[in-house]
Amino acid sequence: MRRVLTGIRPTGHLHVGHYFGMLRQTAELQDHFETFVMIADVQALTDNFHQPQKVRAMVLEVAYDVIASGLDPRRSTLFIQSLIPEIAELTVFYGNLVTVARLQQNPTVKTEIAQKRALFGDSVTYGFLGYPVSQAADITAFDADLVPVGDDQLPQLEQTREIVRRFNRIYGPTLKEPQARVLDTARVRGLDGDAKMGKSLGNALFLCDPPEQTARKVAGALTDPQKQRLGDPGRPEVCTVFEYHGLFSREKLASIATECRSGARGCVACKRELAGGANAFLGPLRARRAELEARPGEVLEILMEGTRKARAVARGVLARVKERMHLDYLGGAA
Amino acid sequence: MRRVLTGIRPTGHLHVGHYFGMLRQTAELQDHFETFVMIADVQALTDNFHQPQKVRAMVLEVAYDVIASGLDPRRSTLFIQSLIPEIAELTVFYGNLVTVARLQQNPTVKTEIAQKRALFGDSVTYGFLGYPVSQAADITAFDADLVPVGDDQLPQLEQTREIVRRFNRIYGPTLKEPQARVLDTARVRGLDGDAKMGKSLGNALFLCDPPEQTARKVAGALTDPQKQRLGDPGRPEVCTVFEYHGLFSREKLASIATECRSGARGCVACKRELAGGANAFLGPLRARRAELEARPGEVLEILMEGTRKARAVARGVLARVKERMHLDYLGGAA
Repeated sequence: MRRVLTGIRPTGHLHVGHYFGMLRQTAELQDHFETFVMIADVQALTDNFHQPQKVRAMVLEVAYDVIASGLDPRRSTLFIQSLIPEIAELTVFYGNLVTVARLQQNPTVKTEIAQKRALFGDSVTYGFLGYPVSQAADITAFDADLVPVGDDQLPQLEQTREIVRRFNRIYGPTLKEPQARVLDTARVRGLDGDAKMGKSLGNALFLCDPPEQTARKVAGALTDPQKQRLGDPGRPEVCTVFEYHGLFSREKLASIATECRSGARGCVACKRELAGGANAFLGPLRARRAELEARPGEVLEILMEGTRKARAVARGVLARVKERMHLDYLGGAA
Repeated sequence: MRRVLTGIRPTGHLHVGHYFGMLRQTAELQDHFETFVMIADVQALTDNFHQPQKVRAMVLEVAYDVIASGLDPRRSTLFIQSLIPEIAELTVFYGNLVTVARLQQNPTVKTEIAQKRALFGDSVTYGFLGYPVSQAADITAFDADLVPVGDDQLPQLEQTREIVRRFNRIYGPTLKEPQARVLDTARVRGLDGDAKMGKSLGNALFLCDPPEQTARKVAGALTDPQKQRLGDPGRPEVCTVFEYHGLFSREKLASIATECRSGARGCVACKRELAGGANAFLGPLRARRAELEARPGEVLEILMEGTRKARAVARGVLARVKERMHLDYLGGAA
């Protein structure tokens, strides 16, 4: 069975944008692949180094979200990055196989550096620039065959593939070159119409939100600004609420559009219906999440068990790497 | 007892330049400090990543040189960098505490990058630029109080001290800020008069050279070019051979200078005397080296024992670091 590896940064609670863009699709992968999900706390620290408590607290929260969204810890491996020191060792070795100029040209890195100007100012940290190097370590440490990515992340995976090819050329065939598994990452807009959910306070529906809060957030969502009152015809194609109906009540979508265009559907009622749909959809997920939250010790044990399993794989890969690099002192005589 | 840490790159045999500039002084430190000597194989790979066999072979050769030069493995700790994964983990964490711009401004890094243009071309590798970051990890991983440096390496140590201060400011007092112990690193010139020994073939007296080879190399050394034949007056102040007499036969130096200036001392005889002096000086060292070379297994065991000891210290430091960074998952509940 081929292995797929994906990572989640524990920098905040996960929302329905994560659910539809990634978590649900990851859960589907479990039927076809051996699935490894890494909670990337070391990676999260590259731009949250000044608030490690937040990262730490989010590790468990993200684990709740991921399992509640369908990741089955009996079939899949959920683990914590910082507990796999082999990743750090590989990162150091791979740093010799890529130039600073090449990293600075990486489009994903460029975009992210531009986005983080407030944090980094004129010069990013060494660690942040090395993001693609440590990602190559993350992926290869587990002999991953496939990495689910959005198409905006393809350059990043290409960097990993370059490092793998360079390593194998210098030291002989050692590392597995991963393939991209392009996900449908059509983005869920924020409730305020912003292109990115989670960007501003209140524009995201978090998986951990209680039903009342979901209803409250939906009530404040952006609709067609030209529709002033009940009876005005609306334009579903510009309405965030309509977009969300597509996520939670796809079967009713055609009739909702017709009613909206005709003016028969008022926004208040439409939002109430969306809140109902969202809460119905998210209900089972919330129930699972509540069960997990009530037993943090068990979830921690799941993480530790996953970490043991993942680490055994990483140990094997690192041993192979060190043998190829003539660093296998413990194997025998010098 | 305060701890001193020093590192040696296993990139070639050690020569009398290393001996006088560092090894002998390190041996003297043992009387006053707990002495850790790291064979920096991971560091050596940053500019020798394409020839790992050479680095591997040199680890043991350098161990012979270091012990033969007076490092007492019963009192001091000699260990191999790549067997301490805690260093790689610290390197990754410290990468978040220093900017790329700051590293590019580091005078030592600037000089080294200029020197390595043939290897790196227009852009250095990410790993090479990160040299000061991994050096901070090397030093702090062992709670070193003191680091012996030449005065040209002070900016490098200052980078470590900056990282330590930044870490302690963000995460609370955790790391020890090391002090410099400035060594007398007055450089031994090459036998060909070049400012740097070891730079070109045949200009270095290696500790492992047999006596005949030492004599042969000394016979080819540069003397005063104005002195054409026996009877001509010489200028000891420009003569490499005279400089070497200062290393091996300091007590005869005044009379040698007088004889040279008067023209009574011919270069051939003077070199023969130097070869004799060098071989007498290096004899005991070579005898110890031969004993070690005959028992590579024992030397490897010394290295493994040193590595165990050093790793225990590094484990303690990393545990402290991870606790401060809220990465101590194994310590208890989340």
